[in-house]
Amino acid sequence: MNIDGRTEVIAHLGYPTHAFKAPMIYNPYFEADGINAVVVPFACRPEDFAHALRSLFRMDNVRGALITMPHKVSVVDLLDEVTPTVRVAGACNAVRRLPDGRLQGDQFDGAGFVRGVQRKGVRLPDTRALVVGAGGVGSAIAASLAQAGVGELALFDVNAGVALALAARLREHHPHLPVHTGSADPQGFGLVVNATPLGMAEGDPLPFDVDRLQSGTLVGEVVMRTETTALLAAAQARGCRVQVGTDMLFEMIPAYLEFFGLPVTTPERLRALARVKY
Amino acid sequence: MNIDGRTEVIAHLGYPTHAFKAPMIYNPYFEADGINAVVVPFACRPEDFAHALRSLFRMDNVRGALITMPHKVSVVDLLDEVTPTVRVAGACNAVRRLPDGRLQGDQFDGAGFVRGVQRKGVRLPDTRALVVGAGGVGSAIAASLAQAGVGELALFDVNAGVALALAARLREHHPHLPVHTGSADPQGFGLVVNATPLGMAEGDPLPFDVDRLQSGTLVGEVVMRTETTALLAAAQARGCRVQVGTDMLFEMIPAYLEFFGLPVTTPERLRALARVKY
Repeated sequence: MNIDGRTEVIAHLGYPTHAFKAPMIYNPYFEADGINAVVVPFACRPEDFAHALRSLFRMDNVRGALITMPHKVSVVDLLDEVTPTVRVAGACNAVRRLPDGRLQGDQFDGAGFVRGVQRKGVRLPDTRALVVGAGGVGSAIAASLAQAGVGELALFDVNAGVALALAARLREHHPHLPVHTGSADPQGFGLVVNATPLGMAEGDPLPFDVDRLQSGTLVGEVVMRTETTALLAAAQARGCRVQVGTDMLFEMIPAYLEFFGLPVTTPERLRALARVKY
Repeated sequence: MNIDGRTEVIAHLGYPTHAFKAPMIYNPYFEADGINAVVVPFACRPEDFAHALRSLFRMDNVRGALITMPHKVSVVDLLDEVTPTVRVAGACNAVRRLPDGRLQGDQFDGAGFVRGVQRKGVRLPDTRALVVGAGGVGSAIAASLAQAGVGELALFDVNAGVALALAARLREHHPHLPVHTGSADPQGFGLVVNATPLGMAEGDPLPFDVDRLQSGTLVGEVVMRTETTALLAAAQARGCRVQVGTDMLFEMIPAYLEFFGLPVTTPERLRALARVKY
């Protein structure tokens, strides 16, 4: 990593920062391809975030910011412009400065999931999708599925109000998309996503009834604790195709690179270069 | 350079940043020794500097800041505490956060010069020193010579008022030190410093009359355009010892490392590891 006076900075803002993985994914790629940019972690407390964000973007060589917990929601109100995906997801984790100096926010976590299933052959306009879990990541995936033109979308959350609120946001921004809530039954869906934390702890129950999965359904997972979670193993045993959690992670990076105006590469290459292994 | 969620940042603030050298000196050393810290350039305009400095130091993992043009003077009034060296030099280029959160500034440019001549055997309390040029770098060198206990100090600047003002600051903070102004005649001095920009351009006149140098005098140079400037060549021809400009540069780095609480190494090793060659 040859940082010099022309290096551009992507500020990675969160608190705490110790578990940050982005520097170990982006920076080895920048280094390998001689891209004069660097992702730098900043441990920024909630009460300092608004000032920090504005201050950093006043620097000529700050090209963008990656925003993570606990700022992903609060950042939305600090920006001059956000995409519909941000509005639906209710959270933003990428900010860039537009040529006129205004700050624009977007959100590509869900785009990573969508790119992954598209590359596995899923034709979204023909697909009924079920997203189980309507928190941060579930909202992001639902937002990106809607943006990508999914045929129909069902949402479930153990907290029914959370699913209803997400459905309302989806209907506001995607009025022609059929959105259902209230059931985690996967039968009849071509794409089913676990966007709950179930699977992060040993012995967690499965997030939905896998016996109701149809063979041929693609089951996606956001949990990255192991490559093949208990859910994915059960789905595979039923004849389903699967998408592992890290596919979503590495599929989203090219979208972020593009947003920041940096050269893009493939998820496979990013995975091979990353200094963090999954 | 393995930046991760535990990396500490030294923010290098200036405008413009294109000629920055510090990242190419500090970072290869951090990398070689597995020190989890990184010097990151920030192109910060004067009108944004006060906010930027405060914002950056609110981040838990910002360990320090290197301050360069055009902020070296204005930063002094933004700090909670500065050393006498900063007061005499009238400029500060290193800031750290004290345990109680206050910001403290120091200045080691002159310390680099002083460490260099001390390692060349100069015993400062027995030495009469002449500093030619009383601008930023001349003031820093004079401040550090005074701090290090030089026996006597003479100052010259083509702008007499600048030398008089520096002399007044020196007398205020070092009341027992004899300080003279008004002549660039090097005769009778054991240590003579060119702290003017003369030598940066081809064909510059020499900053003082080298025919008046005594053999055995140590002649120091701040100009780094070439290793042996015309002044140093003339001084060597008169039987003088010399200190080249880059000696000052690499001698100052250990002082900055110590100030930031980072592991220290030798100037020689820093020079060998640096990705910028002089």
